[in-house]
Amino acid sequence: MAALRRIEALREKLRTLGLRPAVAMAAHNPLSAKLVAEAAGFDAIWASGFELSASYAVPDASIISPSTHLEMTRAMGEVQSLPIIADLDTGFGNAVNLAYAIPKYEAAGVAAIVIEDKTFPKDSSLRVDGRQSLVSIPEFQGKITAAKNLGSMLVFARTEALIAGLGQAEALKRGLAYVEAGADAILIHSKQKTPDEILEFCRAWPNKVPLIIVPTSYPQLSFEEISTLTQGKVRLVICGNHSIRTITTALRRTFKQILQEGGIAGVESEIAPVRDVFNLQGDAGMKELEDKYLLK
Amino acid sequence: MAALRRIEALREKLRTLGLRPAVAMAAHNPLSAKLVAEAAGFDAIWASGFELSASYAVPDASIISPSTHLEMTRAMGEVQSLPIIADLDTGFGNAVNLAYAIPKYEAAGVAAIVIEDKTFPKDSSLRVDGRQSLVSIPEFQGKITAAKNLGSMLVFARTEALIAGLGQAEALKRGLAYVEAGADAILIHSKQKTPDEILEFCRAWPNKVPLIIVPTSYPQLSFEEISTLTQGKVRLVICGNHSIRTITTALRRTFKQILQEGGIAGVESEIAPVRDVFNLQGDAGMKELEDKYLLK
Amino acid sequence: MAALRRIEALREKLRTLGLRPAVAMAAHNPLSAKLVAEAAGFDAIWASGFELSASYAVPDASIISPSTHLEMTRAMGEVQSLPIIADLDTGFGNAVNLAYAIPKYEAAGVAAIVIEDKTFPKDSSLRVDGRQSLVSIPEFQGKITAAKNLGSMLVFARTEALIAGLGQAEALKRGLAYVEAGADAILIHSKQKTPDEILEFCRAWPNKVPLIIVPTSYPQLSFEEISTLTQGKVRLVICGNHSIRTITTALRRTFKQILQEGGIAGVESEIAPVRDVFNLQGDAGMKELEDKYLLK
Amino acid sequence: MAALRRIEALREKLRTLGLRPAVAMAAHNPLSAKLVAEAAGFDAIWASGFELSASYAVPDASIISPSTHLEMTRAMGEVQSLPIIADLDTGFGNAVNLAYAIPKYEAAGVAAIVIEDKTFPKDSSLRVDGRQSLVSIPEFQGKITAAKNLGSMLVFARTEALIAGLGQAEALKRGLAYVEAGADAILIHSKQKTPDEILEFCRAWPNKVPLIIVPTSYPQLSFEEISTLTQGKVRLVICGNHSIRTITTALRRTFKQILQEGGIAGVESEIAPVRDVFNLQGDAGMKELEDKYLLK
Repeated sequence: MAALRRIEALREKLRTLGLRPAVAMAAHNPLSAKLVAEAAGFDAIWASGFELSASYAVPDASIISPSTHLEMTRAMGEVQSLPIIADLDTGFGNAVNLAYAIPKYEAAGVAAIVIEDKTFPKDSSLRVDGRQSLVSIPEFQGKITAAKNLGSMLVFARTEALIAGLGQAEALKRGLAYVEAGADAILIHSKQKTPDEILEFCRAWPNKVPLIIVPTSYPQLSFEEISTLTQGKVRLVICGNHSIRTITTALRRTFKQILQEGGIAGVESEIAPVRDVFNLQGDAGMKELEDKYLLK
Repeated sequence: MAALRRIEALREKLRTLGLRPAVAMAAHNPLSAKLVAEAAGFDAIWASGFELSASYAVPDASIISPSTHLEMTRAMGEVQSLPIIADLDTGFGNAVNLAYAIPKYEAAGVAAIVIEDKTFPKDSSLRVDGRQSLVSIPEFQGKITAAKNLGSMLVFARTEALIAGLGQAEALKRGLAYVEAGADAILIHSKQKTPDEILEFCRAWPNKVPLIIVPTSYPQLSFEEISTLTQGKVRLVICGNHSIRTITTALRRTFKQILQEGGIAGVESEIAPVRDVFNLQGDAGMKELEDKYLLK
Repeated sequence: MAALRRIEALREKLRTLGLRPAVAMAAHNPLSAKLVAEAAGFDAIWASGFELSASYAVPDASIISPSTHLEMTRAMGEVQSLPIIADLDTGFGNAVNLAYAIPKYEAAGVAAIVIEDKTFPKDSSLRVDGRQSLVSIPEFQGKITAAKNLGSMLVFARTEALIAGLGQAEALKRGLAYVEAGADAILIHSKQKTPDEILEFCRAWPNKVPLIIVPTSYPQLSFEEISTLTQGKVRLVICGNHSIRTITTALRRTFKQILQEGGIAGVESEIAPVRDVFNLQGDAGMKELEDKYLLK
Repeated sequence: MAALRRIEALREKLRTLGLRPAVAMAAHNPLSAKLVAEAAGFDAIWASGFELSASYAVPDASIISPSTHLEMTRAMGEVQSLPIIADLDTGFGNAVNLAYAIPKYEAAGVAAIVIEDKTFPKDSSLRVDGRQSLVSIPEFQGKITAAKNLGSMLVFARTEALIAGLGQAEALKRGLAYVEAGADAILIHSKQKTPDEILEFCRAWPNKVPLIIVPTSYPQLSFEEISTLTQGKVRLVICGNHSIRTITTALRRTFKQILQEGGIAGVESEIAPVRDVFNLQGDAGMKELEDKYLLK
């Protein structure tokens, strides 16, 4: 029931035309997910395959085991109440592999899944010289329909047509075919350094099913501008990797400072006090459990 | 063999009297471990139970499943080559439970384990009003001997006598008893806001087996001062939670800025570029694998 | 919702006075669980800690990681629809540890949990010279209340008072105290070679909350006799280890025959044909998925 | 070092021409692996993907997560000392995915891996109307070379050319190409009901690299006959699924008998006593640990 509420909450966000699109922030473990929720302003958690792979320091190329993503996603849902959008990459193989994954993600409390039309094993979209071959339209429609028929979660279909250099016509054709197959939204991805390619696609998008973008490589536009410039067609913006990038910089800085200063006194004022971490771990909740149930 | 090299490297660090003690930095996943190694100055990774629990946003109270700690520790060892010191808390139960864990941690490439003399399930040492009861000396000696007999890893025995308020005499008595049982070093923990209690213990320590401290609550001393003030008895300083505390602050800052600015353009210069993350994921290594083995 | 249906189904079984008690059969993986369901006559699956430990060839002494039990239990629920009774041993530590496990088991679709009043780490009840010390009554009541308050699953409280040699008076006292704390049934365990001790306890049981037995060491009575001789007080009989014991004998026989005959021709008629295994793997369901969703 | 010993032991078996080939028996969990070892006559454990999938009651079609196979394989190695041959199916994707898996399997103590030249996601070879498309020869050579270069384990290359109906010439061509790429043995698979197809292939095999067969569908020949009829070219016979098939029949029989008899008394003499299971769990070893390390 809690799971259904999260699905409905996300569906409602996509339905509503506001000043700005809904915004999902990437997370890769329960702590980052809880901090996204704590920030009080994001609409969803993006359970990012890229961030999870990066947190394991391996490439985002179907190397992390699917069960690791599933378990981490489940754990993110256990500690905060925002809807989770799970990044299922290509769906772990063909439509049958995806079909077996759907009830597992649903039971893990996920609100929406994103699947992309690349071949398995995937390569990261933003990678220089990455392998970016796409499956056929019917093959991907089969995956979308399977996901819709076998679960209650929203299904966001991501086309890599622009990433693969196939052009806007192919991207539109694929987008529409995926809507026809049941997609609740189309995620259109681009790695251009400016938003032009994406804005052009959005303006040309002839369907009322909402669009989703991941503006990692073209961060210039504000969320409101994205809404305005796409006539409200983009209803969800995914901040795809900002947690892991933040962490990388921050850890480097702390480690460097400690080594340069030869001690930990200096960083003390730069980093969260231990009691903040205790709070994020749910210390108050545990105290309550102890008081109530730890009898002698 | 690689595992044995790491054990030897750490043993050597403990043996050598330098200007400063060896320093281990806390990590909770392979990325943070890899960044510790990249910083080029730390001597070991502290595979911290507190950090791991915090990364799952649950209390550090034997709630995370032992296999989660084992798997994360193994993954940390796979992506960088510093020795890993694994935080085994109380050893997952009694000496028998610990005995079954030893070969698993050894196979995971761990160089040293830390076990503490608290009762299971543990509570965090720094927690206000935490449960801090200790097991008997013989019971803990059994654990130490089991760990030594059943593996090649170094065994660091941590006494919580000062944390539990039992005083220096008890702490010394326990430390010596643990040395007698085979401990390769004694970790003496304190949550005083100043180093006095610890320094007093170290000065009184009558044995040549090295000491280890975790100066979270008394960060004032530099690493060199720790060496000087303890006559070189402290040979390892563990920075117990500085990764997770760094991350907490940094994520809060990024999330707040994105929400306040209503877009991701502003944080772009504050966080690592995507290509840095690719590098940390071993992109160059993967490119090499592709060139060599991805034939058509 | 499917999960709630299973809870209700099991609750109903306990409520109803039939010719015989409900019967739960032990399983240790999804295949054994599916075969229990296929047998069409058992009322529930016993997700046995003993069987799981045995399937990993390690003692039943809190050595298997809790997450392994959780994941295996979840997997058993995914492939068949009988209610699952999960063997949580002592609850993984104290009431707080149990409290954190409850929502996980509930999300895994479990209908009931059994917790026992031994100290952690547990030792197997049937083990010769096993460690059988019990926690205090209030301590165990705290666990029961936590489990009841934090989930919808049925909570079966298992007392090891007879196993620990504390006698019937203590067993009754504990049983009643556990009912008071909210237990939905009392599991009374004995390792006598005859049913006398258990029958005596059951006859003396002064409460309408149903009893559960695990007659491994006193297998003489039929299910009907158990009902009759306990005036219907025993509403659930758990066959605690019959899957793993069956497997042990059967594998030994097949392996021996193959080695003696120097080939696999002879066992062919003694073991299930491959197509039977395909059927149990849900081959028909997969064929349907392929036909529907594997488009070109 | 123990791992290297197992690799050498298996290499030696393949090198030696005996009266009969080496024989590997399928297992799917540590208990079945330990019983294979106990039977004292098998030369290796076959960590079968089919058996593992079946034990989870799902199809053998890349549905079980790779980490589940890895962890189960590791656990099998922990409880017995026979060499383990790990069934890696297609290698979890392309050569890069396989490359990342190699050090993990090596660290898990595996002696040999089998990879097959089908496309991912695989379908079971014996399945009626299964999908049996093969990757190109160079693509599969890349996988073999990667596996050889990145680990010390033996690499057995399995060709599905006969299964896919491509005929003996293609099978021979592939076999030789795989030898050229570094394969330590060629596993030639057939689903004919008689051994003719396989024997014909073996006789035509023009290379000294040994052959491996899995005679599930043509069980007629004794191990000695296999040696004789193939002039000793077949040096390893894998009994691919006899554990899981044995279990299926045995559990059905026990469950049926218990239900028919309405009690567990009747099966008591048919199934292993509980003490046998204790022994397989290593009860004696635990007792020793308790005596030595469980101090008060």
